Order: sequence, then structure tokens, then C-alpha cells
Amino acid sequence: MSSVTIIRNAMVLTMDAGFHLFRKGTVLIEDDQIAAVGEEKDINTGYENAEIIDGSGKLVMPGIVNTHTHIPMTIFRGYADDLSLHEWLYDYIFPVESAFINAENVVAGAELAIAEMIKSGTTTFNDMYYFADDIAQLADRTGIRAFLSEAIIDFPAPNSPNPLKGLERGEMLMRKWNHHSHITISSSAHSPYSCSKEYLVKARELSDMFKVPFNIHVAETRREYDQSIKKHGLSPVAYLDSIGALSDRTVAAHGVHVSEEDVRILARKGVSVAHNPECNMKLASGVAPVPQLLNAGVTVGLGTDGVASNNNMDMFEEMNSAAIIHKLNQKNPSVMDAQSVVYMATLGGARALGAEDQIGSLEVGKKADILILDMDQPHSHPVYNVYSLLVYSMRGSDVDTVLIDGKMVMKNKQLLNVNEKDVFAKVDKIAAEVMQKNGMVQR
Amino acid sequence: MSSVTIIRNAMVLTMDAGFHLFRKGTVLIEDDQIAAVGEEKDINTGYENAEIIDGSGKLVMPGIVNTHTHIPMTIFRGYADDLSLHEWLYDYIFPVESAFINAENVVAGAELAIAEMIKSGTTTFNDMYYFADDIAQLADRTGIRAFLSEAIIDFPAPNSPNPLKGLERGEMLMRKWNHHSHITISSSAHSPYSCSKEYLVKARELSDMFKVPFNIHVAETRREYDQSIKKHGLSPVAYLDSIGALSDRTVAAHGVHVSEEDVRILARKGVSVAHNPECNMKLASGVAPVPQLLNAGVTVGLGTDGVASNNNMDMFEEMNSAAIIHKLNQKNPSVMDAQSVVYMATLGGARALGAEDQIGSLEVGKKADILILDMDQPHSHPVYNVYSLLVYSMRGSDVDTVLIDGKMVMKNKQLLNVNEKDVFAKVDKIAAEVMQKNGMVQR
Repeated sequence: MSSVTIIRNAMVLTMDAGFHLFRKGTVLIEDDQIAAVGEEKDINTGYENAEIIDGSGKLVMPGIVNTHTHIPMTIFRGYADDLSLHEWLYDYIFPVESAFINAENVVAGAELAIAEMIKSGTTTFNDMYYFADDIAQLADRTGIRAFLSEAIIDFPAPNSPNPLKGLERGEMLMRKWNHHSHITISSSAHSPYSCSKEYLVKARELSDMFKVPFNIHVAETRREYDQSIKKHGLSPVAYLDSIGALSDRTVAAHGVHVSEEDVRILARKGVSVAHNPECNMKLASGVAPVPQLLNAGVTVGLGTDGVASNNNMDMFEEMNSAAIIHKLNQKNPSVMDAQSVVYMATLGGARALGAEDQIGSLEVGKKADILILDMDQPHSHPVYNVYSLLVYSMRGSDVDTVLIDGKMVMKNKQLLNVNEKDVFAKVDKIAAEVMQKNGMVQR
Repeated sequence: MSSVTIIRNAMVLTMDAGFHLFRKGTVLIEDDQIAAVGEEKDINTGYENAEIIDGSGKLVMPGIVNTHTHIPMTIFRGYADDLSLHEWLYDYIFPVESAFINAENVVAGAELAIAEMIKSGTTTFNDMYYFADDIAQLADRTGIRAFLSEAIIDFPAPNSPNPLKGLERGEMLMRKWNHHSHITISSSAHSPYSCSKEYLVKARELSDMFKVPFNIHVAETRREYDQSIKKHGLSPVAYLDSIGALSDRTVAAHGVHVSEEDVRILARKGVSVAHNPECNMKLASGVAPVPQLLNAGVTVGLGTDGVASNNNMDMFEEMNSAAIIHKLNQKNPSVMDAQSVVYMATLGGARALGAEDQIGSLEVGKKADILILDMDQPHSHPVYNVYSLLVYSMRGSDVDTVLIDGKMVMKNKQLLNVNEKDVFAKVDKIAAEVMQKNGMVQR
């Protein structure tokens, strides 16, 4: 017998192709899937033993998709801010990672991030880090939808001694996990400048073989762009294209420094871009030409990047920043309207991960990854335009209840599968050790 | 007999000159003032009948100061977004204001804004709108610290038929209100381009006479700058200086388009700048040169501007945006460090309003305008640097308890002086009327 959950009397934002909004809407969930969505009167809700959720005064929408992050790095939240990129990376992040990245600490940081993501409405995340097997077990336990990968890189990394072993390990993990209902192991290479041509192509081939995303950082900084021109006579995007490393499974993180020709290449190859506006601003990397990418037909999703640079996992903040930074950058307040931004954060992200037939909108047959938001706050009144409200006024803290794969993972702001106190104690202890080792005091 | 409140066991961020942080801190409040602040062991807490607040796991900090806003405009939140400035102003905002701005609607919108401000940690706001007398009564009832003004302008405005009457009315309101413990009526002129030289100078003189701020929008857009050059042969700042309209009580809102010479003028005259980063981004106005202003010794406070353009009153979002936009704009991730941003939002704002001896930091003898923040959320762990945490991770929704002028106005996230349901119903009704009149549907 299937389990049935019914959300009633809510404002339902579908993000379907017609952007349907149901003012007194109902969502019917059978097992892990959406079985019906529409106005109350049009839906048969006569099920025995159904769990009924009263959505009065609430907003129901698809779960948010974070297309680029490194979740275990929450343990370094606020460890090193307001520094030049070089000082940040070489004097702070690399040394602290080398000393403190192990399976136990990764899992603690990942669990903190998962708690933060669910509480702020992210139901799917796309991660590049180490110890993907451990994080997959955590995703299984906490119920979050996870795309996980260990990025291959041509210098020694904590859990990936060499690229070839990294590829073998990736393939092993794909075989182990990729029949799971909400866990996918993807392929990743760190970047065009830190991986040889051989491994870039092999990582792309692996993604084709398993039909999973291929993640890579591309053109994040001006320095990377200039060095690529100097070394290859080609931009990072053009270089990757020239060696056959791009495909329609490629998720290019950042894509800040891309030329008009690069935009055409990305569009032609069907590459998606994971846009991380707050991280790009905070590290002074630049502004990705998202309006141009969208005009060219490139799929763009939103991401937070890792917490060591961002410093949070809240996709509502990314939506807000994405909406306003491009208006400023293009000197045009009509670009990146609120609806387009909500699309990027939901169905756009799903499309970037090749999962648009599964998630990203509330449509019959899709997985039930659903947010129920509290509208009972001063900043949520009045409502002229619900997209504007989501992007410009509401916050991650307005998320009240979350279902992923049809299962409730947060109810009335209480996480059901994470013991927050335990997680806080673990990460606070790690931070205390980091500070002690570095002779820092909390300030 | 004085009333005594004691906050114990909290992390206390003072924002005093030494940026003292007390890890197991106590704040002692007698009547409306801070009587002691420091480590628990150094403070006599042996009072009978004192109200004790347990601050375990909480962060205590000064109330936030919003230096530029138009609070009644919350009734138009989300009414018109993603439009060119001209279309937004002439096709939407001016017509809707002319049809819907009356005392009743202004009070409803203002009360929604006050609810939103207190809930997100703003204890003082500096407003320019109409019906200041009505808003003052509301500020008295709700307990928030208010600097209120009706901006004079050389064309008819809803409640101010001509500038001369506006000045007379301002003077009358100053005489009426300016002995109030937390309400100040200030002087305001809309802008250099919408007011004659005569009224600009008179408004500045009025501020000197009553020792109150003189608010004026200055150099918000490139168009304003260019037209000023064309009309006067001078930038907006230089023009205001040339006619004697600037003083050390002047709060220049925006200050986006200011030259190096303008920065020197602002510094020399002791003019403060109210910086509104999110509004300036959303309307594509530009980026104020805040690092240069600070280097030149100009006092800079933060503001939200009105909700019709922002679209919220959350100063935590402004802190975040202020920290990251200047890094991007200056291509330097080390500018606008988190501590400087917290300073702008607290003591910097107090200084801009000439109230630095009263508010903006937790110091003995100052008014007890105090926030108690919940640290028990995933995004607030771990804590390496509490300034980073406030600026880059925490949100307005983390504010748990608020005291203003020594009185509690919010306790455990419950507003004590505002009936939220009533306010929501009022503004929702206004919005329904606006939509009906304009043939709009909620979407």
C-alpha cells in the first residue's frame, strides 16, 4: 500500500512550463512522487490514512537546487575572511585542510551543512569534495538529495592520492551508489589549470558512461583566464572545448571570465553553468555574464560554493544577490527578473544536473521534493507578486516544512533526521582545535 | 525606584572603541540606560527585583541603526519590480502614491515596517516621508527609536502643499516631539534637483536651530550627476556646498556619484553618508565609493531605503551586501572587513544621526538599545569570528529579544507592542485595493 500525503489550502507555486500558481492549491503525494497538483476543487483528496498538511497561509514550492558547493567546509566558516585570494588560499585554507580534513571532520561539517541546507530550503545539492562515500551514507541517513563527487586534481589531495586512482574510485562509487533513490555519484575534475588534458577527458568520459554530471571549476578568476591565454592561446572554455572535455553533462562552476565566443561554445556544447554570485563578489572574482548566457540558451543554476568563502548555505541569499548584481552590472534594473531567478534556483538547477525530469518543479510524476514556507511574517506582506517576495523579501528562515523524495525531513522548523545539538558540539570542537593549533582566539 | 534588567552569560559584542568582546558577559540596565557591561565576575548583579535574562548561547549587541528609509512604503512591497527607473517611478510609484497615500494607509505601512525592523534587529530608523506626526505617535506606542521628517519638495506632495508650509510644519513638529525620549523630528529636503536653493538652505538652517539631522538624497543616479553638471556646472555635492546647504548635521542619502573632490567636500563639511547598497544595486544606480569615503574620514551609516525599491527592512542583508559589493567593485577582497561593516550598521549610523553619545554601542551611560540573538542555528556554528558571523552568515531572523530605551519590545521573537495579525490584515487589504484599482492580479 502506498503512503499518501496531502498538502491543502496553500498557495502553490509550481514552476511548471506555464508558471501556474494555485491560490487555494493542493499537492497530492504518493510514495516518493507528486500524484496531483492543482486547485483543491480539481483534485480527488478522498484517501484513507493520508497524512494531511494544512497549508493555510503557507507557500508551497519546489525544493531548491544548489548546483555548486563543497559542504564539509562549513567547519571553516569564518575562519579566514576579508583577505586577498592568495593569502586566503595559501596561508589559511590549504594548511588548515591539510591538517584537519579527515573522514570524521568531513562528516561533521557535511552534517552541519545538510542541517543548514534543509532548514533554508535546499533539497538537492551538487558537491565536489573528498570522502564522497562517507557523505553519501550521511545523505542516505538524513534524506537529502545529493550529487556527490571527488574532484580529480593533478596534485596530492587528502583522500585522492592520484588522478588515476581518483577516476577508479569515482567509478567504484558510481557502481555502489547510483541506483539509490536520492544519491548520485558524479564525475569531477578540479579545473582546466590543475588537471592534465588526459584526466580532463577521462573525467568527461566517465560522466558519459554513467550518465551523470561532470563538474569542473571554469574561469573563476581573471588570473585563470589570462594564464590560460598565455599557456594555451585559448580561454579556459575554448581550451576545454579544444581537447574534447565539454559535453551537455558538464556543469561549469563560476564561468565568470567568459568571452562572447566562450558563451557561444557553452551554448553549442550544451554546457550548464553553476552561478555563485555571493562567492564571486566576496572573493572579488567578478560577475558572470548570466543574462548573456541565458540569452544564448545556456542553462544556468545557482550555487553557494563552499562556506569557507561564502559563508553560508542559504540559497535565498543567492537568489537575492543574483537578482540585484546583474541589474547593477548591466546598468539595467529590468534584467534578471524575480521569476527568472526562482527558475534558476529550481528547474534551472535541476536541468543543469540533468535531473529536470525528476525534480525542479511541482508536476505530476516528479519526485516530491517540496518546501512549505511560512508567510506569517512582516516581510511577507503584502503579496503583489510571489516571485518578487521570494527573491527580494523572504529568507531561508521562512522555510517551515520540507519533503524530499516524498519523505518529511523537516516539520515545523524541526529537523527530523539530524540531532543539531550533537552536530554543533562536534563542529565547535573542531573549530576549537583549529584555533588552538593556529594560536587564534575567538573574536 | 529604578527598574533593573540584567542580561547574563551571553557573548557580549560592545562596539566600544576597543571593540571589547565579553565571552561570559553581563549587561546591567537601569531604567533606560546601560549601567554596567563586562565579564560577569566584574559586575555587581546583586539587585533585588531585577529582571534576569539568561543569555546562554546568545549574542548580545547594540541595536542596529537604519540611516535612510521611507517606512510607510511597505504597503507597496513587490508592487513594481524589475523595471527601468523611469517606468518604475512614473508609471507605478507616483500614481499609486497619489491614489493611496493618506494617514490611515501610512500608519498601516509604518506599523508593518516597525514590526519588520524590530524583528530583524533595527532599534533606530531615520525616515523621510509624510504624516510624520502620525508616525511619531506610532513610534511612541511601539517603543522604537525614530528620527522622522517630512521632506520638503518644490512640487505638491500628499501632505505638504508647499515648501514654506513644509518648513513651518517641520518646526511645529520639532517643538511638539523633540523632548521625547526616543522620538526626534528632523529636517529634510528631498534633493538638490527637486528643491530651490532657498528651501535647501532653510531646511539646513532649521536642522541647526533644533540640533537635528538634515536629510537629503544626494547623487543617487548618474543622470542626477550629469544634469547637475549641465545646470550648475557643479556636481550635486559641490552645488549643495556652493549654496551653503551642507553641514555636519547633513545626512546625504546614497552618495553614489561623487567625485574625488566631492569626497573631500563631504569630509571637510562633516557630512555623513547613508549608504543603501541593495537599493543602489536593484535600481542599477551604481556603487557608492564607501572605502574612499571612510578613508577620507566621512561617517557612513547603512540604510535600506524604502521597501518599494528594496524590498525589505532587513539590515542584516544590507550588512552582507555592503561587505561584498565593495570587494567586487574595488577588485579587492580585503576591503570592507566584517568589523567595519558592523560598525557602519551600529555606531557609524548613530554618528551619522548625531546620536553617538546616546546609542550605537554598549557602553555605560548610553541608552539601552540592545539585541539578543539566537546562536542556536546551523549557520551560526562554528564561531571563529563573531563579526564575520554577523555579516556573512547570520540573518535578521536570528534576533530573539530586543530592548529599546531600556524597555523590552520583543521577547523570544514575540513582538510586545504590535498586533501582527491586525497589521497584516490592514496592509493586505490596501494591497487588494491597489491591485483592484490597477486591474492587477496577485501572481
